[in-house]
Amino acid sequence: MDLPKTLENAVSQLKRLPGVGERSALRLSLSILNWDDENIRNLSSGIENLLNIKKCESCNSLADDVLCELCKDPRRNESQMMCVVESMSDLLAIENSGEFSGSYFVLGGVLNPLKGIGPDQLGVSKLCKKVVDGNTETVVLAINPSIEGDATCSYINEVLPEAIKVDRIGFGVPIGGSLEYLDSLTISQALKNRKSL
Amino acid sequence: MDLPKTLENAVSQLKRLPGVGERSALRLSLSILNWDDENIRNLSSGIENLLNIKKCESCNSLADDVLCELCKDPRRNESQMMCVVESMSDLLAIENSGEFSGSYFVLGGVLNPLKGIGPDQLGVSKLCKKVVDGNTETVVLAINPSIEGDATCSYINEVLPEAIKVDRIGFGVPIGGSLEYLDSLTISQALKNRKSL
Repeated sequence: MDLPKTLENAVSQLKRLPGVGERSALRLSLSILNWDDENIRNLSSGIENLLNIKKCESCNSLADDVLCELCKDPRRNESQMMCVVESMSDLLAIENSGEFSGSYFVLGGVLNPLKGIGPDQLGVSKLCKKVVDGNTETVVLAINPSIEGDATCSYINEVLPEAIKVDRIGFGVPIGGSLEYLDSLTISQALKNRKSL
Repeated sequence: MDLPKTLENAVSQLKRLPGVGERSALRLSLSILNWDDENIRNLSSGIENLLNIKKCESCNSLADDVLCELCKDPRRNESQMMCVVESMSDLLAIENSGEFSGSYFVLGGVLNPLKGIGPDQLGVSKLCKKVVDGNTETVVLAINPSIEGDATCSYINEVLPEAIKVDRIGFGVPIGGSLEYLDSLTISQALKNRKSL
């Protein structure tokens, strides 16, 4: 049986969400159909309004305004530390840990010549300018471990002025993780990163 | 950290979808943000257009038009059988089995006096009229087993004219199911519904 076209269209749109297949998209559509008109409109406009979201001019993270909340906050630069992340979700993960009180810079990806992502796409020169202008003392590269991630870290370390301390976030056994189930690369990193007690 | 308001709003809207929590809603929103403007607009309007979907005047299922595709199809009434279901998703499940070629009637729920759902809310008189007008010989109640579902079946059986054969869909062991893991109610039904070979 063919679904009504309106429903079919909603299904094919929802299907493009990550982790949503044909069946879940249909389930979502049928459940939305049970909502009040007001709620359906709110969901639709909530999604459409995402078009209005801006990139913070200073750190490239997402913002309602020219600057994001963190760049507007004067208390966030006291530590003279800047954390460089790949994406907004990585930034949020670090913020949620509550362990970092410096500023951020969002690259929006990692160097990947095959996909045409070079230093310009990541805004590396903007990063360098922000580091120098902000008198940043330490840059923490919180970039996920991968071949491209490692290359990106090396590249940023190269182009930043020598006087600036560049650290990479520590690798090792995750809390709650079990040695038994960890891959050997993580274990070898954890052995290298051992700390005297 | 507070999310940008636009993002926060999208998250709180998406969170209302079934099976989507705070974290998944954020993941969905961030992934939508990586889409083309065109695709974001399509998703938003796809959802908003669900407001335009109609109830088929004949069978109460969803339709683009006054009548749904199945009620428009002259071949679908030949068997003089009508299947009564609770919801559009149940209708689709039966259609997908390819085993039923009659017409449908969607109740939109089951009798539930505590929630104020009586025969009027389910359109039982409309169902009776459709059965009589369409010279339906057999009504198959494909209503899920539950106290309310059972009551709804009894009620419909009472109000339909005596001449009409009223069946309820068969209960038993699902194909691919294992006796070991089935609840005792299902097993007792399966024993009652045994068939001689």
